[in-house]
Amino acid sequence: MSLPSINRVCSEKVISDVVTILGKMLLRNGGKIPLHEPEFSGNEEKLLVDCLRSTYVSSVGRYVDEFEQALALACGVNHSVAVVNGTAALQVALRIAGVNVNSEVLMPSFTFVATANAAHYLGGIPHFVDISEKTLGIDPIALRERLNEIAEVKDGKLINGQTGRTISALLPMHTFGNPCDMEALLSVAKDFDLPLIEDAAEALGSQYHGKPCGSFGAMAAVSFNGNKIITTGGGGAILTNDPELARQAKHLTTTSKLPHQWEFVHDQIGYNYRMPNINAALGVAQLAQLKLKVKSKRALANQYQRMFAGIQNVRIFEEVDGSESNYWLNTLILNEDNAVKRDELLEELNNIGILSRPAWTPLHTLDIFAQCPRGKLSLTESLFSRVVNIPSSANLVRDISV
Amino acid sequence: MSLPSINRVCSEKVISDVVTILGKMLLRNGGKIPLHEPEFSGNEEKLLVDCLRSTYVSSVGRYVDEFEQALALACGVNHSVAVVNGTAALQVALRIAGVNVNSEVLMPSFTFVATANAAHYLGGIPHFVDISEKTLGIDPIALRERLNEIAEVKDGKLINGQTGRTISALLPMHTFGNPCDMEALLSVAKDFDLPLIEDAAEALGSQYHGKPCGSFGAMAAVSFNGNKIITTGGGGAILTNDPELARQAKHLTTTSKLPHQWEFVHDQIGYNYRMPNINAALGVAQLAQLKLKVKSKRALANQYQRMFAGIQNVRIFEEVDGSESNYWLNTLILNEDNAVKRDELLEELNNIGILSRPAWTPLHTLDIFAQCPRGKLSLTESLFSRVVNIPSSANLVRDISV
Repeated sequence: MSLPSINRVCSEKVISDVVTILGKMLLRNGGKIPLHEPEFSGNEEKLLVDCLRSTYVSSVGRYVDEFEQALALACGVNHSVAVVNGTAALQVALRIAGVNVNSEVLMPSFTFVATANAAHYLGGIPHFVDISEKTLGIDPIALRERLNEIAEVKDGKLINGQTGRTISALLPMHTFGNPCDMEALLSVAKDFDLPLIEDAAEALGSQYHGKPCGSFGAMAAVSFNGNKIITTGGGGAILTNDPELARQAKHLTTTSKLPHQWEFVHDQIGYNYRMPNINAALGVAQLAQLKLKVKSKRALANQYQRMFAGIQNVRIFEEVDGSESNYWLNTLILNEDNAVKRDELLEELNNIGILSRPAWTPLHTLDIFAQCPRGKLSLTESLFSRVVNIPSSANLVRDISV
Repeated sequence: MSLPSINRVCSEKVISDVVTILGKMLLRNGGKIPLHEPEFSGNEEKLLVDCLRSTYVSSVGRYVDEFEQALALACGVNHSVAVVNGTAALQVALRIAGVNVNSEVLMPSFTFVATANAAHYLGGIPHFVDISEKTLGIDPIALRERLNEIAEVKDGKLINGQTGRTISALLPMHTFGNPCDMEALLSVAKDFDLPLIEDAAEALGSQYHGKPCGSFGAMAAVSFNGNKIITTGGGGAILTNDPELARQAKHLTTTSKLPHQWEFVHDQIGYNYRMPNINAALGVAQLAQLKLKVKSKRALANQYQRMFAGIQNVRIFEEVDGSESNYWLNTLILNEDNAVKRDELLEELNNIGILSRPAWTPLHTLDIFAQCPRGKLSLTESLFSRVVNIPSSANLVRDISV
């Protein structure tokens, strides 16, 4: 297979540079390169079969317990509660934090729709704040400015003076696996007495100042969807150090049923969110490979960084000092002059089989969230117009060791 | 193993009668008899392994498609949409039917909490109606009386005159797999212009007048939880004959993302409810055994019916003419004089290893639903005090063929 004839279809310098560099991967890979694919090179088959033969495939079983324990250990927290997906984990964490009808949740607009949906399911309202180009997560300075502008304390509650609604939680998201500036965000949360919940859906295995993402907030949500660093098919978990919050999370996710040998009494509106044992069996096997996957993905990121060193008009995102990203998705950022070429670049890359995508359409620009309160979102909009995620599977590092 | 010395601990005639009859199962089974356990005697292992090796374990994959097609065929409908569980299926069906904030949903109080939770998640309000002793599902006569008492049409909408709220849907549940009187319920729904959604969580494989449960309403929800007649670990599905409703269900359960090669645009508040492919693989293998399981469970019910023939003070529930129940859970009903002995009977049965349970605590008696509107619920309360579900696994019929 020879390199696609790039120059014929694409005359722009930045596009041809990127396509030339990434095109080398095609030579070694021999075909389409997915954005992110799972790999099952551990005990997955053995544990799945064992789980099936035990007949405990559903919401009770030893793999759920084992997965929760291993996950808590991997994330440096005391407790984890495994659920059906990351969205469910977020919803439950927000509910426990006190989000309810008409309360506002501070979050990025630069995120997957689940972040905002989770608040909406509870009757809550997303309140969007801008992100930082350094981390791609909530900018602590913009956040503090926004709160100084709108926040008041009334009857002991933090209120948005412009809407009259309670501000109930701060929900930063570690974008593409890259840790937010947690020290600064925790300081804002403390100053405004706001519970901080981490949306760590993409950041399993990432670290900030030597501590795992997901271990900083009162609670955190992680995801094990098929496109994540490890997968359970579909799945997620709530992480926390607080035994009482963990108890609440377990209770709410198992229909809030009070323990009894046979009676069905439910003391709150709960959810049918427990992770099935068969999915947890897959998770136990996958989790055992997490460190290796992080290592591979960091090696891939490093490779990309070398490949793109010295290229004009586009840079590859690199973690800041003190952060260790799992580089869930590697990220090209076009310079502002070249933002207009993003779609052409996406078109070109996808056409030749290098599956790539832009960031999520900023949530405040979707009709469903257009009425939500927000600060200025200039970096969100600028970065959205310039970001392209490129293939980032853990197994890819072997294929591109050029 | 010898029979437990029943007469020593239990002097009541009805209890000793039941325990003597069911005690025979222990002799053959050699230990504890679960209420309902899954059995994997088909291609489960093969398909799970195949799914894993394909790497498509998550929300896209051929097993999801295959499962949906086979399920639609089994349920006599044109479309099915596979989701994470029966609760999610109910929620989505109700949303599509138009249930939203402050709309009332007519449903039994004699049901699992998920039926009411599904309405609550949408801001809807359960409105409880009584059940019939013949079917254990909503009593069409009580329903019609209740609607005649409270319903008015205002601006083309059905309103509860007592609360001023819209009545948006009728949600009968096929209790323990026994079909409701669908003909009469559909007639009420038609007369009051109410969309009818079937909660068929327990009734996969049951038939009414020769047609499968789940094929009568505008939509239906089924469940594949571990305790159901077939299982996907955790799972459920929305059933419908209407291609447009199926399209909406698929769209809402996949985050309402508009199809595009790379863009993330979501046009409604959606859900992350898609069934993972690994769970669907299990489902494909299980579904192939549905007919056999229904046959075994009906043979078991028949066996129970013979065992309890002629016993005083307690009867075993039998389907009415025109219904073919899957007998998901077999049901003993104490006569009214013996209702006081229900807990003693449960205690005794569970103590000797015959795992048994009462019906769900009626939802209107739970604090969380105590304020919901309701008609008279005398049969609901009476039956709750008298019902005991006994072991009903499909594989049990072999063990008790006495």
